[in-house]
Amino acid sequence: MNTKLKKVIESMHQKKIDCMIVLKPENIRYLTGFRPSSSSILILKDNPILLASKIDREDASGSSMVNFEVYKKFDDVKKLLEGKVGIEKSMTVETYQKLSGGFEVETTDIVEISRSVKSTWEVENIKKALQIAEKSLMELEFSGTEVELAAKLEYNMRINGSERASFETIMASGPRTSLPHSTPSPNEIESPVLIDWGAVYNNYSSDTTRTIIQTEKQEEIFNIVLDAQKTAIKSIKPGMRSCEIDIAARDVITEYGYGDSFIHSTGHGVGLEIHESPSLSKNDESKLEKEMVVTVEPGIYLEGEFGIRIEDMVLIKNRGIVLNKLKTKI
Amino acid sequence: MNTKLKKVIESMHQKKIDCMIVLKPENIRYLTGFRPSSSSILILKDNPILLASKIDREDASGSSMVNFEVYKKFDDVKKLLEGKVGIEKSMTVETYQKLSGGFEVETTDIVEISRSVKSTWEVENIKKALQIAEKSLMELEFSGTEVELAAKLEYNMRINGSERASFETIMASGPRTSLPHSTPSPNEIESPVLIDWGAVYNNYSSDTTRTIIQTEKQEEIFNIVLDAQKTAIKSIKPGMRSCEIDIAARDVITEYGYGDSFIHSTGHGVGLEIHESPSLSKNDESKLEKEMVVTVEPGIYLEGEFGIRIEDMVLIKNRGIVLNKLKTKI
Repeated sequence: MNTKLKKVIESMHQKKIDCMIVLKPENIRYLTGFRPSSSSILILKDNPILLASKIDREDASGSSMVNFEVYKKFDDVKKLLEGKVGIEKSMTVETYQKLSGGFEVETTDIVEISRSVKSTWEVENIKKALQIAEKSLMELEFSGTEVELAAKLEYNMRINGSERASFETIMASGPRTSLPHSTPSPNEIESPVLIDWGAVYNNYSSDTTRTIIQTEKQEEIFNIVLDAQKTAIKSIKPGMRSCEIDIAARDVITEYGYGDSFIHSTGHGVGLEIHESPSLSKNDESKLEKEMVVTVEPGIYLEGEFGIRIEDMVLIKNRGIVLNKLKTKI
Repeated sequence: MNTKLKKVIESMHQKKIDCMIVLKPENIRYLTGFRPSSSSILILKDNPILLASKIDREDASGSSMVNFEVYKKFDDVKKLLEGKVGIEKSMTVETYQKLSGGFEVETTDIVEISRSVKSTWEVENIKKALQIAEKSLMELEFSGTEVELAAKLEYNMRINGSERASFETIMASGPRTSLPHSTPSPNEIESPVLIDWGAVYNNYSSDTTRTIIQTEKQEEIFNIVLDAQKTAIKSIKPGMRSCEIDIAARDVITEYGYGDSFIHSTGHGVGLEIHESPSLSKNDESKLEKEMVVTVEPGIYLEGEFGIRIEDMVLIKNRGIVLNKLKTKI
């Protein structure tokens, strides 16, 4: 049994959970090595078992480190359960209702918490994804429409070894940069240009934002965001609460008078999912630990004018180590 | 209030549901015109209200047909609820537990059922997505690696007006075609080549599969799959049960002795989601209706050899109308 799986089962038992139903594809990938393409069920207990859909049989038999059987019906799952059953918070009500009766059920984020602290191998995959993403941006010629540039960037990432884009590429320019999650438009790019993009390597994601500026006003805002980002990164230390990093960035932006224009949280964990634990936001009281990988991405959005965001990936050691090689001002 | 929204609220009241919490982004898009980029909550009642995240404020104010406010905390949502509360089956247990106490709650798929029957405008969007996808495939030169071809196909779709790929493009060749959900490899393409791909236009998806064959054995299997596909399409009529279409395809393949090699269901609805109601599978007893759009995609997978799948999109009128223009044998 692999170390991660063993550890998760141990902490399950520590919490007096006798077995656990794992449905989230990323959690299954994490614990078994197999990435389901269709609904699969992992039952964690001393002898864990993976129930994969018939469509994934050939793939699961090649890649799963856990014994697997072809999933037939949910009643068969029930027969494999015993005692108090742990479930993920992301389980749907539909599945939850199928379980009801006969089982004491408890939600737990044991797997998500385990995933937030990365192994050396996981960090290597994240670094590789980041390297692909940065190389692909540098190969881009900044002319044409937002759509064309987004298409070319995603193409470059694929050719450079990315499995897919880690999320919908944001290639915004001009006033559209004030929408933090803008969709690429058919307009020719204008200033500033905000690119938020990522690659995927071995199922691990990267996530970075750069804003290419031109005017003095843009530079003024850029420098405030950069100050906030550097301050937040400096504040990262194991043992700090996640929310404190958010406060560190927010305080800088607020001091400059743009507090109301920083309309999202400061960052999030990245790994098998593009957003995972911890959340660098005001509501996350959890403590940062060594070997977590988080984004730090403050932004200022001025409706009708423009928006600036700067995002790097940070590996937590005794302090925060920026994983990006690409300079901030490009 | 738009017609769809009005109809959904009417059927909600018919089911004695007083209000409903809508969280699924596609359901929110369907009922309000606004596509959330972050978690948003739509409360359906006689005066529906949309609670959007601060990050989406500018976008929601431009596109939502329902009055919206910036979402602050879940307790504010509770204050907006009254009487019996409808929830989606896809709601997570985490949210469900936040709701518990004080409300009589009932799961319902009112919105999904409404979405399964398309308006003329919706069909036009699906047709446009399909047209983009087919044009993009025809522009492809079939040489290079699977990864290169997948990257080029997705690039073409973007340039031709697709918002993104509607799902992870499958570009499989040689023995990898026997994995129904194969990931593109860095290998040079070999025979046969199976492409399962789709575009997105105005948030509506297309979904098609073609298999390019070469050998006699491949042709033999291809013809069986084609026979099954044509038979299934011919069996489509309003009032038929979804499972009957699955049986029609499966019976043909079973007659030829390949029943065990058809390891997935025959098709599914397509629209704002790539997989939506109805499901053309043995477990779906629901009746087909006019103006539904479904895929019909039987396949035969011979492990270690190859796989063949043929998938078209079908609009249900008095009979099934194939929406694809691209010929089956390319």
